[in-house]
Amino acid sequence: MNYSPIAPPTARSLGFAALLIIVLTFTLSALFDISSLQFNNSSLQGLHDSEKSASRNELRHNIWADLSVEETKDLLHYLHTVPNHLDLTALESSNPFSNYILSTEVLRPNKSQALDYVDKRSEARPPRWAHVIVFHGSGEEATLEEYMVGPLPPAEETSIRPLTFYHNSGKSSSPNLVPDSASLRDWPYSIADEIADITQNILGSVINTGNRSNPDGLEIGFRDPWIDENGRTIRWCSFQRAGEPSQTRTLLPQGLYVKLDTTGRDPKNWEVLHWFYNNVLYNSTEAFRAAWAMPGFVITPPNLDGDWTSIESNSDNEPEAQKLAASSGNQASRRRYTLEKEQQYVSWMGFEFHMAFSAVTGVTLYDVRFKGERILYELGLQEALSQYAGSDPVQGAARYLDSFWGMGATMFEMVPGYDCPDDAEYIDTQFSLRSRMNIHRNAICLFEYTADYPLQRHTTKSYTSVSRNKYFVVRTVAVVGNYDYTIDYVFYLDGSLEIKFRASGFIQGAYYIPGESEDYGYRIHNQFASSLHDHVINFKADFDILGQHNTLMSVDIEPTIAEYPWSPGERRSTMKLTRRTVETETGLNWPANSASHLVVMNNDSANAWGEKRGYRIMPGSGMGAPAHLTFQGSKTLGRAAEWAQKDFWVSKQKDTETRSSTPASNFIAQDPMIDFGKFIDGENVVQEDLVIWFNLGNHHVPHSGDLPNTLQHTSASSVWFMPYNFHDRDPSRETSQGIRVGGPKTYYEALVPENDLGSSK
Amino acid sequence: MNYSPIAPPTARSLGFAALLIIVLTFTLSALFDISSLQFNNSSLQGLHDSEKSASRNELRHNIWADLSVEETKDLLHYLHTVPNHLDLTALESSNPFSNYILSTEVLRPNKSQALDYVDKRSEARPPRWAHVIVFHGSGEEATLEEYMVGPLPPAEETSIRPLTFYHNSGKSSSPNLVPDSASLRDWPYSIADEIADITQNILGSVINTGNRSNPDGLEIGFRDPWIDENGRTIRWCSFQRAGEPSQTRTLLPQGLYVKLDTTGRDPKNWEVLHWFYNNVLYNSTEAFRAAWAMPGFVITPPNLDGDWTSIESNSDNEPEAQKLAASSGNQASRRRYTLEKEQQYVSWMGFEFHMAFSAVTGVTLYDVRFKGERILYELGLQEALSQYAGSDPVQGAARYLDSFWGMGATMFEMVPGYDCPDDAEYIDTQFSLRSRMNIHRNAICLFEYTADYPLQRHTTKSYTSVSRNKYFVVRTVAVVGNYDYTIDYVFYLDGSLEIKFRASGFIQGAYYIPGESEDYGYRIHNQFASSLHDHVINFKADFDILGQHNTLMSVDIEPTIAEYPWSPGERRSTMKLTRRTVETETGLNWPANSASHLVVMNNDSANAWGEKRGYRIMPGSGMGAPAHLTFQGSKTLGRAAEWAQKDFWVSKQKDTETRSSTPASNFIAQDPMIDFGKFIDGENVVQEDLVIWFNLGNHHVPHSGDLPNTLQHTSASSVWFMPYNFHDRDPSRETSQGIRVGGPKTYYEALVPENDLGSSK
Repeated sequence: MNYSPIAPPTARSLGFAALLIIVLTFTLSALFDISSLQFNNSSLQGLHDSEKSASRNELRHNIWADLSVEETKDLLHYLHTVPNHLDLTALESSNPFSNYILSTEVLRPNKSQALDYVDKRSEARPPRWAHVIVFHGSGEEATLEEYMVGPLPPAEETSIRPLTFYHNSGKSSSPNLVPDSASLRDWPYSIADEIADITQNILGSVINTGNRSNPDGLEIGFRDPWIDENGRTIRWCSFQRAGEPSQTRTLLPQGLYVKLDTTGRDPKNWEVLHWFYNNVLYNSTEAFRAAWAMPGFVITPPNLDGDWTSIESNSDNEPEAQKLAASSGNQASRRRYTLEKEQQYVSWMGFEFHMAFSAVTGVTLYDVRFKGERILYELGLQEALSQYAGSDPVQGAARYLDSFWGMGATMFEMVPGYDCPDDAEYIDTQFSLRSRMNIHRNAICLFEYTADYPLQRHTTKSYTSVSRNKYFVVRTVAVVGNYDYTIDYVFYLDGSLEIKFRASGFIQGAYYIPGESEDYGYRIHNQFASSLHDHVINFKADFDILGQHNTLMSVDIEPTIAEYPWSPGERRSTMKLTRRTVETETGLNWPANSASHLVVMNNDSANAWGEKRGYRIMPGSGMGAPAHLTFQGSKTLGRAAEWAQKDFWVSKQKDTETRSSTPASNFIAQDPMIDFGKFIDGENVVQEDLVIWFNLGNHHVPHSGDLPNTLQHTSASSVWFMPYNFHDRDPSRETSQGIRVGGPKTYYEALVPENDLGSSK
Repeated sequence: MNYSPIAPPTARSLGFAALLIIVLTFTLSALFDISSLQFNNSSLQGLHDSEKSASRNELRHNIWADLSVEETKDLLHYLHTVPNHLDLTALESSNPFSNYILSTEVLRPNKSQALDYVDKRSEARPPRWAHVIVFHGSGEEATLEEYMVGPLPPAEETSIRPLTFYHNSGKSSSPNLVPDSASLRDWPYSIADEIADITQNILGSVINTGNRSNPDGLEIGFRDPWIDENGRTIRWCSFQRAGEPSQTRTLLPQGLYVKLDTTGRDPKNWEVLHWFYNNVLYNSTEAFRAAWAMPGFVITPPNLDGDWTSIESNSDNEPEAQKLAASSGNQASRRRYTLEKEQQYVSWMGFEFHMAFSAVTGVTLYDVRFKGERILYELGLQEALSQYAGSDPVQGAARYLDSFWGMGATMFEMVPGYDCPDDAEYIDTQFSLRSRMNIHRNAICLFEYTADYPLQRHTTKSYTSVSRNKYFVVRTVAVVGNYDYTIDYVFYLDGSLEIKFRASGFIQGAYYIPGESEDYGYRIHNQFASSLHDHVINFKADFDILGQHNTLMSVDIEPTIAEYPWSPGERRSTMKLTRRTVETETGLNWPANSASHLVVMNNDSANAWGEKRGYRIMPGSGMGAPAHLTFQGSKTLGRAAEWAQKDFWVSKQKDTETRSSTPASNFIAQDPMIDFGKFIDGENVVQEDLVIWFNLGNHHVPHSGDLPNTLQHTSASSVWFMPYNFHDRDPSRETSQGIRVGGPKTYYEALVPENDLGSSK
């Protein structure tokens, strides 16, 4: 069988997340709020009407689009009414021991089928299939069961089958460790309540149990992941202050931790394993209490909220001359792009592509063409890894695989004029969850922008020619709890394409411990220290350079000694290009001294000058080159992110290797649903259908300037796809960007009167 | 003795350059044109009035400013009228065998004296001195003699002394190989005229001798440099088509070369050494002629000019929907910066600095402060190296040290709204040359801009906070012949400072030779191939982090195995920071996997949290990390650019090591005026006054997309200085950039009617 990606299973933004959100405070505090939308100094602008596309002869249907409302309704009706083995309970009567439909999402067509339609070898659209995740609560172990259901709309031949074809583990079922989010919150909070007298004494506050929401009260944060090597559900909990009004609990660890074993579904079997405070490990609540009661018990200072966590400016300290608010940089101009909203088709200055949205991975681009020629079949996010280090039980082992939280589901409304320029256009997103369609307004923005510098310029004695550098951006922001991940796809007039990642929001840090925190970061407030962590964000780029037969070439710039006929007998130090074909699937790092050009080319192609046509893959306009994971052997990461070990990889395209990661691996990282390492198994990649899996990211060691929020310009990383002998000549010259004026003029001022200065002897 | 930099000696844009320009066609075709200034679709805007600075208690005088017109007049009068040993001839009666004043420029004060004044330990300004270059033509060998003259204005104690103190060669005199530019052009052109019948036959054209300026005629380009290892003046000449109207001879090599020996000043002693054509070396004109006359002599196709070298758009091919001209991106807003033009003092959002201009090195920044604290004493360009490779005698050995051509003197008028945004402010430059003050209007621009992305953003369930990312740019463009070098100093709200280099203009390439050109580049037109070359652009950054006692620290992010008290007996793979002090002067490369933070810090400082305050030095928002020189041992580069071997260097500040390069080394690269390698001699650099010498640049292998011009976004390189625990908290929070709005809203659409779906059994 043959189909594509997977919908969000256990992300708290999805399904039971509506309950779970109060429990999982580490990475998300922003979901499903229904407060009314307020814009202080700005107002939502009316959207431009979409213009009709004219650039393709016939605009093809977006075959990668998510299921529509009608399709989803039909599907849900089918699953609930046609006899099957799913043993479903209607949602309104469900409980944690029921089975119900958690989410539904399109299963995108296989590339082979898709291309037949897109390239007009077939008029028939690929069949529609759904990826259905069933919350399976009726068994001894709660699980998430993944199915492929199709073809749609439901008919005689429609079937429900386990989804396994792109899970190279062979699995379609994964453990659901959070089937009963109420108990999973209530029980740890009750443990905290048992020591309220202790926390009142050592932290000056008590847990916010029940409906209490004291801003200075305590909350519990749970370290990701929860499973240890023995398969036990081990939850290291950190006491954090609630942190109103900034809602920034990740800045407010208190240095008190409790280790719980919540294996199994019956809270009666759960137990407290350890308490940890001031570098001492206690084997029970009783032992902790006894120590606390002893004279000489050392209390460390609490880490208190205050102005230091406030994001907004303190204008009282601002010099008068600076108090002009930042202007918006309004790019008033007529639009030069086309957005066809129904098919989510975009064209701009020769580029065109379809967009497809997923609650798990956000926006993916399909069939990306420039001047009618396909460059990429698919380009999109796969996974966002954060691996932390630190001396305490949370920072010391935390790792996040953020597709679990939904890199699409956490894309919220953006602020016009701030998140994107004033004249940006916005698109809503929607995804189905627990029999409701969730709609996020203005979660994707698109705009053309003018760089502050020209694309090209040249001055001669008689003319100066300069062209504006306009570019086009598709932007989303995924707010995964404390962190805001901005992902841009940027298109340039020369056919270049950039993928850019930026982080902002509140860092996650540690309770400050003198003599220990310095190994992992810096003290950045009274009782708060930063925690070194690696961001590694994996993307898939399925290149199709003039067809599906492509080759990755390394063009190496190397020192050499040469002798030339114009200087016989002389050996000269110089440099040359050496071209090396990458023969088999492999992982590569960005070269030292940028001394290699990595180019995806088609060996059977030639431009007008006989050079093979290709696209160079290179570190782009982020801060230096993107980084990969610092270390191997993370016990909490397991084998869930083997792609993080190198900067990028080349593999042969397969419908069974359509994704490098899936949220369902989150709780089974040692033996994940998808093990990317198995993709790289020595297959020949010369003139094959290639996929480049590349990483963005950086090693983040926050310093005092990361408070209150990490700044986006300091956290940017980027990969750039640049045409490389792809055209016969720079294609930007075919567009209207520039101006030609007369040559420069030099004015002279005489410094000496004629004949004023004689000889000096 | 103790003084500072050096003025332009032999740059063709300077002094005798007015004559030399017609000879040296490789790198410059744009100078000293007096055609009237025309703007087709744009008009020059009136400059804003400067606002008075209010941000320092008392604005200090710009002690680094170049000599004013009055100072220069007084100086010239003094040199010509007070008896001295210079043996000067008045300019109007001078000839190549005379001595005359070539250029005058300020000799900037030593740092120690400067700081006494700037920091108000002294009210006395440092004495004014001049750097005077004398064209010395009266000797057997023509030379350039460099003097320091001061104090100024001329008085009793004023003296004229050889300038040696920062030339670690001890020299103040350098050979002038172009004293008689008329002969130096006329003689080679006469050689070309002797074979006009041959060039007519094999190239279809003849040399543009005399006043001929046939656009399809031939011109001669001379490879840089001219001196071989034996001290002979060897000039490899390439026949190029003149290339009107694009004036782009560097795209039009014809594959015919002649090697001349023009040692000495008497053309009667000059001789033709070799001709080179179609990979055959001929030992004389007669031998070349004899071979040509033989049957079977192979003629290769000429490399003809045409539309392919035209920069402007061919709108006929442009889709109708795209024909809207690019809008300007006008940033209409009130200015938030101060420019005090007389003192060339700038302040913006907490930053303040003075600018100083030099015809050799362009704009240097002095006394760069943020929120009143000095970060840098000096920041500026030192040298721009281009090292080529190729199989022919020109590309195979060409190298340019572009300060020789004047990285300031070649800064011409910019085009408002294209080179810089509409609301940019411009500053003129002026420099004295052969007793005239040359004035270039609008050669420096300054502007505030809005990034397309926010500086910071965060969404929680109840609010979203976003800040605009405004930044401030000081931009210049040096047009050194075929190439346009844009240099930006970019200032950010958090105290970050970026130095950015971009290249545009016409590449210099090779006549295409099948089977050979591919070793060095690509065939990019019928008879034209690109030439691999390295750009390495050296900058000086004299850091003063809270005083002159600073230390360079490498904070290394390293894998480790650790055991923690909260998990006794367990060895965990993780990562840690290791801090290593750079103890002695050394060169360093950007670390693999970005796994080290390089920080200039003051060990005796502490922020509110006890962390040492510093600035991190890192690759910035160029394309990946900047590159250094690929190979060692270039015979044409000699020891003139030892700084190009590593990405950056740290040395102890000395008034005798004030510059890493000087134009006077151009003809004596084997034994240059300044050998940077000697700067790095093992001195201790812990808590000393540090200078960071860093390189921008890239390995440029032009492909078809570099025609007609290299695009700036693909050629950018950058280094970023980022505050690192420098402040107690992000200082951008103290300014008005942002907005806070309500939290995001999720809308729901029910997919199933209540009670519609039952159980499926």
